[in-house]
Amino acid sequence: MKAARLFEYNAPVKIVEIPKPTVEGPFDVIVRIGGAGVCGTDLNIQRGLAKDSPPLPFTLGHENAGWIEEVGSVATLSGLKKGDPVILHPFTSCGFCRACRGGNDMHCVNGHFPGLDTDGGYAQFLKTTARSVIKLAPGTDPVPLAPYADAGITSYHAVRKVTPFLSPGSTAVVIGIGGLGHIAIQLLKALTPAYVIGIARSEAKVEFGKKIGADATFTAGSDGGLKAVREFTNGVGAEVVLDFVADQGTPDTGVRMIRKGGTYCIIGEGGTVSDTTIDMIVREITLMGSLVGTYNELSELMELHRMGKIKISSKVHPMSDVVQVMKDLKESKVLGRSVLDPWK
Amino acid sequence: MKAARLFEYNAPVKIVEIPKPTVEGPFDVIVRIGGAGVCGTDLNIQRGLAKDSPPLPFTLGHENAGWIEEVGSVATLSGLKKGDPVILHPFTSCGFCRACRGGNDMHCVNGHFPGLDTDGGYAQFLKTTARSVIKLAPGTDPVPLAPYADAGITSYHAVRKVTPFLSPGSTAVVIGIGGLGHIAIQLLKALTPAYVIGIARSEAKVEFGKKIGADATFTAGSDGGLKAVREFTNGVGAEVVLDFVADQGTPDTGVRMIRKGGTYCIIGEGGTVSDTTIDMIVREITLMGSLVGTYNELSELMELHRMGKIKISSKVHPMSDVVQVMKDLKESKVLGRSVLDPWK
Amino acid sequence: MKAARLFEYNAPVKIVEIPKPTVEGPFDVIVRIGGAGVCGTDLNIQRGLAKDSPPLPFTLGHENAGWIEEVGSVATLSGLKKGDPVILHPFTSCGFCRACRGGNDMHCVNGHFPGLDTDGGYAQFLKTTARSVIKLAPGTDPVPLAPYADAGITSYHAVRKVTPFLSPGSTAVVIGIGGLGHIAIQLLKALTPAYVIGIARSEAKVEFGKKIGADATFTAGSDGGLKAVREFTNGVGAEVVLDFVADQGTPDTGVRMIRKGGTYCIIGEGGTVSDTTIDMIVREITLMGSLVGTYNELSELMELHRMGKIKISSKVHPMSDVVQVMKDLKESKVLGRSVLDPWK
Amino acid sequence: MKAARLFEYNAPVKIVEIPKPTVEGPFDVIVRIGGAGVCGTDLNIQRGLAKDSPPLPFTLGHENAGWIEEVGSVATLSGLKKGDPVILHPFTSCGFCRACRGGNDMHCVNGHFPGLDTDGGYAQFLKTTARSVIKLAPGTDPVPLAPYADAGITSYHAVRKVTPFLSPGSTAVVIGIGGLGHIAIQLLKALTPAYVIGIARSEAKVEFGKKIGADATFTAGSDGGLKAVREFTNGVGAEVVLDFVADQGTPDTGVRMIRKGGTYCIIGEGGTVSDTTIDMIVREITLMGSLVGTYNELSELMELHRMGKIKISSKVHPMSDVVQVMKDLKESKVLGRSVLDPWK
Repeated sequence: MKAARLFEYNAPVKIVEIPKPTVEGPFDVIVRIGGAGVCGTDLNIQRGLAKDSPPLPFTLGHENAGWIEEVGSVATLSGLKKGDPVILHPFTSCGFCRACRGGNDMHCVNGHFPGLDTDGGYAQFLKTTARSVIKLAPGTDPVPLAPYADAGITSYHAVRKVTPFLSPGSTAVVIGIGGLGHIAIQLLKALTPAYVIGIARSEAKVEFGKKIGADATFTAGSDGGLKAVREFTNGVGAEVVLDFVADQGTPDTGVRMIRKGGTYCIIGEGGTVSDTTIDMIVREITLMGSLVGTYNELSELMELHRMGKIKISSKVHPMSDVVQVMKDLKESKVLGRSVLDPWK
Repeated sequence: MKAARLFEYNAPVKIVEIPKPTVEGPFDVIVRIGGAGVCGTDLNIQRGLAKDSPPLPFTLGHENAGWIEEVGSVATLSGLKKGDPVILHPFTSCGFCRACRGGNDMHCVNGHFPGLDTDGGYAQFLKTTARSVIKLAPGTDPVPLAPYADAGITSYHAVRKVTPFLSPGSTAVVIGIGGLGHIAIQLLKALTPAYVIGIARSEAKVEFGKKIGADATFTAGSDGGLKAVREFTNGVGAEVVLDFVADQGTPDTGVRMIRKGGTYCIIGEGGTVSDTTIDMIVREITLMGSLVGTYNELSELMELHRMGKIKISSKVHPMSDVVQVMKDLKESKVLGRSVLDPWK
Repeated sequence: MKAARLFEYNAPVKIVEIPKPTVEGPFDVIVRIGGAGVCGTDLNIQRGLAKDSPPLPFTLGHENAGWIEEVGSVATLSGLKKGDPVILHPFTSCGFCRACRGGNDMHCVNGHFPGLDTDGGYAQFLKTTARSVIKLAPGTDPVPLAPYADAGITSYHAVRKVTPFLSPGSTAVVIGIGGLGHIAIQLLKALTPAYVIGIARSEAKVEFGKKIGADATFTAGSDGGLKAVREFTNGVGAEVVLDFVADQGTPDTGVRMIRKGGTYCIIGEGGTVSDTTIDMIVREITLMGSLVGTYNELSELMELHRMGKIKISSKVHPMSDVVQVMKDLKESKVLGRSVLDPWK
Repeated sequence: MKAARLFEYNAPVKIVEIPKPTVEGPFDVIVRIGGAGVCGTDLNIQRGLAKDSPPLPFTLGHENAGWIEEVGSVATLSGLKKGDPVILHPFTSCGFCRACRGGNDMHCVNGHFPGLDTDGGYAQFLKTTARSVIKLAPGTDPVPLAPYADAGITSYHAVRKVTPFLSPGSTAVVIGIGGLGHIAIQLLKALTPAYVIGIARSEAKVEFGKKIGADATFTAGSDGGLKAVREFTNGVGAEVVLDFVADQGTPDTGVRMIRKGGTYCIIGEGGTVSDTTIDMIVREITLMGSLVGTYNELSELMELHRMGKIKISSKVHPMSDVVQVMKDLKESKVLGRSVLDPWK
């Protein structure tokens, strides 16, 4: 089968022929990939920044959707059959550890993350487990939905964590209106009564944020949008900041954007967050990391999509264009998310 | 009346005669101070580190208990009468703002903090408001209970914030076994099924921690106790760390002590907390400040004291010894809490 | 001043002249009533069903809005001044008891309920306390907003209680599309991702429910809408039922409408709820009462109104028509809520 | 193998030889039973009251512990091996449905309940699944621990549900000091700061309740203990009532025992609970069913046992005495729990 693989760090991926994966264990599921989302994390892996990367060469792609191709014995029990359209939870959790038992799939102590630590979905077929598969309604086209598998679930998990802090009249700020942020803005509008502010560097993304429903959008400017948020909130600050960038100074800005009792939630990566302990206690603020999301959360997200409460902005490209697609992302030229179709 | 006042920064307080405060507004209450706790924050104010300190001279003391002396018209309505033994919530909240309405007295936008921004309780009488008074059972001696008014409530508020994360088999670490930490250890044992670890610099405090009920105690040593916590938790880390020091490197250690999904809660002050955003998300950890506590929380704490579930280790000194008592605290020679009696 | 008062049970109220109330205590506030909502509870009081009714004659009206007329000394401190447009929290809470301290105004042990146990707002002026007053934006016409003061807050409190149980794909049923139910339907749509079903007896109300945003509406019919809810939820049942009728068999139906793990929430009154204990445990269901709401909740509701997320359907009548207006309500002819203007 | 089976309703069980169960599917686990607890539900099944009972003859016993005998392919993956001492979660959940994914094993839509709807543990061997097995520390004697598998987990789940409502100074009432109630009393003392009251019919059980740590115990008497609870709580009522009887009038009493805002939690079965809707709302009370508990909860309970925070009062009998043991339970002669050893 065809796969776009990383052969060396800081070099473009190459499309090569490799053997199609096969069912070995009872939980195994082989998925015919329809679409694989291209994520900023893929760029970080390419740059050699991910500490748990497998030995090269290695197939990228952790945001996957497609159709069931083949299933192991237990997977059969769970009702999956060839041709079912599916979206994949990005983690292959075990189902037996305490985290899995409590629904916290992402903290499974026995799992893998295809596309991060085993071969991923920039390929015609992917091996995953029965526990990671979410069936879509018969006839659904899974290809454009692929970004929900990571950009979507990660936004949803973060929004759910902060929802209890957002009562009517409160304000939530989204830093970064990209693949994740554009979903988070819609989710905040759909699930909370808060005012939603979007902040981005480029004018195009600021416009995009407004179009998808933010109550206000600001360009980051030299102060990262801090002054604009202060003014919007009458000098008080926002109840919640969701930082999808978390790099290049946004953590400093984000922590200062929140009000007394507020919450700064980190979803992006790259930078460092820091605050004096006296400020932490006097303002009684909370800084929290948010990691992907659970299987049930991805199911709920697909339900929100079916209800029409959120829309994914994804553009499908043939996998043969993968090098250009990754370059566009690096240069911040993508609105929403790019998806690779490995069959084109 | 006699009061121990700060006349210049970095100099000892002096005991002087000043006018007794009087009832002016309808909420005013004058309390005859029985005991005023001596807190590390008092040392910080003395060093000129508190940014909101009032102009000097100024009376320290934010941890107060005693007897009702005189009450304004509204205070009368609330059932207070001369001679009632009372302990005082440290903040004089307004009762009308959104925070007060929701029970978050400490975030009142109209309040004061006697001993921090107005004259405090190192004095024979203190002016506060009806909203800050908690009546003790008739006949109770309020003097040794004074430290509950700040050291106690602050520990209780922090412990309540982390209680939901402490199921059977989990571990909570208390950094600093001083005036606050020694109450926190007891509260964690009384209110949660967690294993409780205490960490302190001095051998005397490590012994003290064991005596008051910690399941294990460790000296901070060169690594702040990190290795000991890792071993106690089989390499996994603690669910919760409560940092009552939050200075001299404890935030770095504390953040590394917690496990995946864990919570590092800051109660002390002085240092800076910092972490990479990638660590925040991969471990999905939470860093939170905790600020004093609410009126109802102080009431609940007094109930725990009545039930015998916690004990305060306080030693009462005549206020005439205030300079020596503050010196002992500075030199870390106090086990539990010192209390000043302004009538001796 | 003019007031519509109840002189004997089971007889129409009469409009008479009585003395205007005056400020006596420091918390007292006199409000010039702009509008007083007419509620089903008023009909129950008229029928002599309220056990805590004061001696007759007595002025009805617990859903009040208008303008500040005069304020006591403490009320002045809280920033109220003559002419401010206001809406009134229906309970006059004390601010000192444990319930008030925790924000649960409705469980205040020292409060009163004007219109239920003291003279209410079917009058040109009403005496309440500073703690019950919510200022509206300058220039707001308070008259049509009066129903938020009880119908609104009561719906909001109930919806907030069940919000945590309503994830995407879940279903909430509202029984009774009247003064409260029509607000609850809008709130469920604004605050949760649930499918919202409305059930009513009359065709007019079923149509009304659809118009204000219910995803589906059904007539109660002989089975109270049970079969329709079962079908809508694929035989599983609803996660939540809010019963604004709670009489004439709706509790039996409502309890059977909920699914395993579901919640049946009672806001109406009149009937009896009952279930076998084996059904309670096997389905692990919860039955809960919901009582009015808090001051902060009424503030949040007014914010939702300002944001345009909910609309009140109220029609203002001169108070001189009070007898006819109450008759119309009794005969279930009112869509939304009727409001009396005591100055006409 | 030997098994104690029910051949006809309202007749004693008979000990007979039946084939030992065998591993068929990948999740299957065969457990050599060390002890099987004898529960009131077994008596109800015997009387023909359980609606989902399988066709007779049928082996009772849903409270089981023992040693691993044989495991299927997936079970092997989960690290189980012959001879491991184990306690069994009473439900065989699927691990794939939404409830399992969220940790709510008891609401699994594909599970079974050995001893209730398939053959249970009054036998030398039992077939269950890998998902139901909790490993005990090497060398643990599982026999006396069997009652934790149902009596224990059911008490724990209920106590966890009400823990958030029990702050210092509050009161929790346990109705019924039997197999479940005697664990609940200990759990409430270990996990909450509430005063704990036990109520039972027999003097022996009232004494037993006191011995295991209740702050007060009362005989049910003619009023079910209502007056005693009212007096203990100064006329206010208890924050929480846990009803392990839920029959013969205890629901009426229990609902009246709770205070404003209180919670009445049903764990027993047999009777009917009922209240007027006006009482439900005016007191804003909650009635909830509680069903067994989750796998993680059983793990946590075993941790509490290891920590010495709770003790099970169980007496082991040879299975050959099963008829007498069941008779003693019926006649309320058992303190704590009886356990059958099928190898004696």
